[in-house]
Amino acid sequence: MPALPPIVAALRSALPADRVLTDPALTAGYAHDEAEWAPHGTPSVVVRPRDTAEVAAAVKAAAELRVPVVPRGAGTGLSGGANAVDGCVLLSLEAMRAIVRIDPAERLAVVQPGVVNDELRAAAAGHGLWYPPDPASAPWSTIGGNVATNAGGLCCVKYGVTRDYVLALEVVTADGEVVRLGRRTAKGVAGYDLVGLLVGSEGTLAVITEVTVRLRPLRTAPTRTVVGFFDTLARVGEAVANVTAAGLQPAIFELIDRHCLRAVEEWKHMSLPDDAAALLLAQSDLPGPAGEAEAAAILAEFTKAGARDAVASTDEVEAEALFDARRLAYPALEQRGDAILTEDVCLPRGKLATMLARVEEIGARHRVLIANVAHAGDGNLHPLMITPTGDEDARRRSQAAFEEIVDAAIDLGGTVTGEHGVGLLKRRGMRRELGPGAIRLHRAVKAAWDPADILNPGKVLG
Amino acid sequence: MPALPPIVAALRSALPADRVLTDPALTAGYAHDEAEWAPHGTPSVVVRPRDTAEVAAAVKAAAELRVPVVPRGAGTGLSGGANAVDGCVLLSLEAMRAIVRIDPAERLAVVQPGVVNDELRAAAAGHGLWYPPDPASAPWSTIGGNVATNAGGLCCVKYGVTRDYVLALEVVTADGEVVRLGRRTAKGVAGYDLVGLLVGSEGTLAVITEVTVRLRPLRTAPTRTVVGFFDTLARVGEAVANVTAAGLQPAIFELIDRHCLRAVEEWKHMSLPDDAAALLLAQSDLPGPAGEAEAAAILAEFTKAGARDAVASTDEVEAEALFDARRLAYPALEQRGDAILTEDVCLPRGKLATMLARVEEIGARHRVLIANVAHAGDGNLHPLMITPTGDEDARRRSQAAFEEIVDAAIDLGGTVTGEHGVGLLKRRGMRRELGPGAIRLHRAVKAAWDPADILNPGKVLG
Repeated sequence: MPALPPIVAALRSALPADRVLTDPALTAGYAHDEAEWAPHGTPSVVVRPRDTAEVAAAVKAAAELRVPVVPRGAGTGLSGGANAVDGCVLLSLEAMRAIVRIDPAERLAVVQPGVVNDELRAAAAGHGLWYPPDPASAPWSTIGGNVATNAGGLCCVKYGVTRDYVLALEVVTADGEVVRLGRRTAKGVAGYDLVGLLVGSEGTLAVITEVTVRLRPLRTAPTRTVVGFFDTLARVGEAVANVTAAGLQPAIFELIDRHCLRAVEEWKHMSLPDDAAALLLAQSDLPGPAGEAEAAAILAEFTKAGARDAVASTDEVEAEALFDARRLAYPALEQRGDAILTEDVCLPRGKLATMLARVEEIGARHRVLIANVAHAGDGNLHPLMITPTGDEDARRRSQAAFEEIVDAAIDLGGTVTGEHGVGLLKRRGMRRELGPGAIRLHRAVKAAWDPADILNPGKVLG
Repeated sequence: MPALPPIVAALRSALPADRVLTDPALTAGYAHDEAEWAPHGTPSVVVRPRDTAEVAAAVKAAAELRVPVVPRGAGTGLSGGANAVDGCVLLSLEAMRAIVRIDPAERLAVVQPGVVNDELRAAAAGHGLWYPPDPASAPWSTIGGNVATNAGGLCCVKYGVTRDYVLALEVVTADGEVVRLGRRTAKGVAGYDLVGLLVGSEGTLAVITEVTVRLRPLRTAPTRTVVGFFDTLARVGEAVANVTAAGLQPAIFELIDRHCLRAVEEWKHMSLPDDAAALLLAQSDLPGPAGEAEAAAILAEFTKAGARDAVASTDEVEAEALFDARRLAYPALEQRGDAILTEDVCLPRGKLATMLARVEEIGARHRVLIANVAHAGDGNLHPLMITPTGDEDARRRSQAAFEEIVDAAIDLGGTVTGEHGVGLLKRRGMRRELGPGAIRLHRAVKAAWDPADILNPGKVLG
């Protein structure tokens, strides 16, 4: 019988037995997130701590033996940020899922990192409060993972991203110390914004063990939906630019392109038109007549840009059906059995149409079918590269298209990742986007907080 | 004739002559900000650069000679953050005041750091856009200083602080390199949030040479004002808590206590009642009937908490008069010729009344008259310690009260500074608030970016 690896022995002596998994049948499920074709290694061991002290004990054991620690929430990431490196301690926070406190008087919630996004939203709603960040993964992804990647979602266009809601964090640093950062007050400027620094740092600076988030009063559900089909991408871009220039602030402002519309139609038979270049979908959540006026103004901008079948609807059933087209776009493509490589670039809003045309050109040149959904109001575009499963040549062409899209986004003044994070897939793009001076400042922070490069090594900075 | 100090010689050879001031009659005006009794030294030289290259040249010269650099905007700070240390290069960004670009399509502005807050707001308004952060110093303070301190203001309660509006920065690092950080897109997660790290870092991590801010559509001016006078601090606290608990979101929510009311009344004769403990002042900026409904709901909460003379007004003249009482509170106290030591603590909203009672008790015990204004909706309280000019014993008693208020804020779960920054005056309080673990992480960042401790040494971390 082979001797236990020293890290496994150390973890077994530091933690209750059921926290430490080494059975390959179990640990294999923790080896990677949902990023298509992102490389990953094999963990030595998976640790599932129940509280902060157990996280600290695990990190301390790993730090002493210089074994990498890869933190993980639900593993729904799309950039490889939670992928194992060979021999690592895979630290899954999934079992730390207590909602510690919801405080209506201060409009905040304190949660453990493994709490699922939708669970927090439901619990907040029970107190008349609302947690806005709503990534598509909300039914599965955890608040810890959302914070680590600074997750976005549909509501961001009006209500901001995860970073805008994180007030305080408890973290375990690379040497296994427990530190509290931030505050519970509405405002505060005592010291550097280290909470903001950790949001989006993808597990490379510390392990998040508790999150305090700001909540908003529960809003009444948006009741005004505006939709418009457009014949050309140029007209779509014009409509997005017009809505922004007119000072309108839709609570949701989404784009679904023809490939997605077609896939949804083929799957669900919703009588979607098969000849439109894209559908734009907006909602106003202003109360009463102000909402009516905003919906009418959005509709006018759609029409001015040449939309057809544009309509402002108060019919909830009809509105929900069109939102289904948005929600079902990804599953509709996925259920065909193809592999989907998901892009996530963010452009200046005015460049969205130009970028969509570039994506089309890149897809044609590499012979890759690229479908698109976008958080149009944010300029956040998700080109989806559809690749027949097992077709190695198609995979290579998709990956080449992926890199060209990244470069095109930079060239148009955009960013290589709007909300999915850098992980493994956007490291080259990030270096190009930020340039050597900014990268040097990043590395200085990483080296200062994690000099032995224990925490999620190889991710983000590479 | 004494030889020039080496730093002056180096700066003269690196920069045009008119950028480098050494005449003590001129440089004395740059030695400190507006923090009462904060210690300050004497600069060797004041540099007034006109562009980023000149900032870089100045920092490089200072770094080579290991001379401290103290950056400064308009010097309106209240914590000593811009105070000179002996022999330093005082780097005044006041002459870099170009509004580089306002981009309505992307809703952003690019400005040099010396642009005055009100100038940016006016320029944005010309494009139908709005820059919300509105510190009381807005007619004089600069965007660079606002970013360095993460300035707040009246609108924060609904629209957030400076940090919520900064998209990108150009900075000069401690070794004189020019680095661009952040992005111009609505969203983005490429790399760590180093922009957020710099906002509020008070010149200790880099010198800000250009700022890109997010703008909002210009709102129609709030037209519904709700006021209420309260007989006791407990009732004031109840009203604030009730408004929050009811899910209301006033665009402004201010408190003026009886000492301020009395000072304004004595100065301006506005027929303010002289027997109320405090006035609460709220505004709704929701459009149309929603605004009416919100104002009515706020009024109902005031009344429920026992307000007298509570009224919701659409009379702009009447509303403006009461806002004058808020605006004039500080000048009314100041024009008496007393020294004013300004506090800035932020409490959980539910603790505001408790804190006000503590402040009263602390003032009585130290025989210091303490007047209070507060951004009530944020729990951000400004006790103002009124001290007869030249009375050394009274000064010591005020300073003792100041420290006790800081400790009381921490003990009630608050923070030692809500919006004025740490500077020199809140260093002890910040260390107590954050604790040794968090301070260690702060020091690691500072040491990583400024290993020779060139940038604003002694501030924030001490």
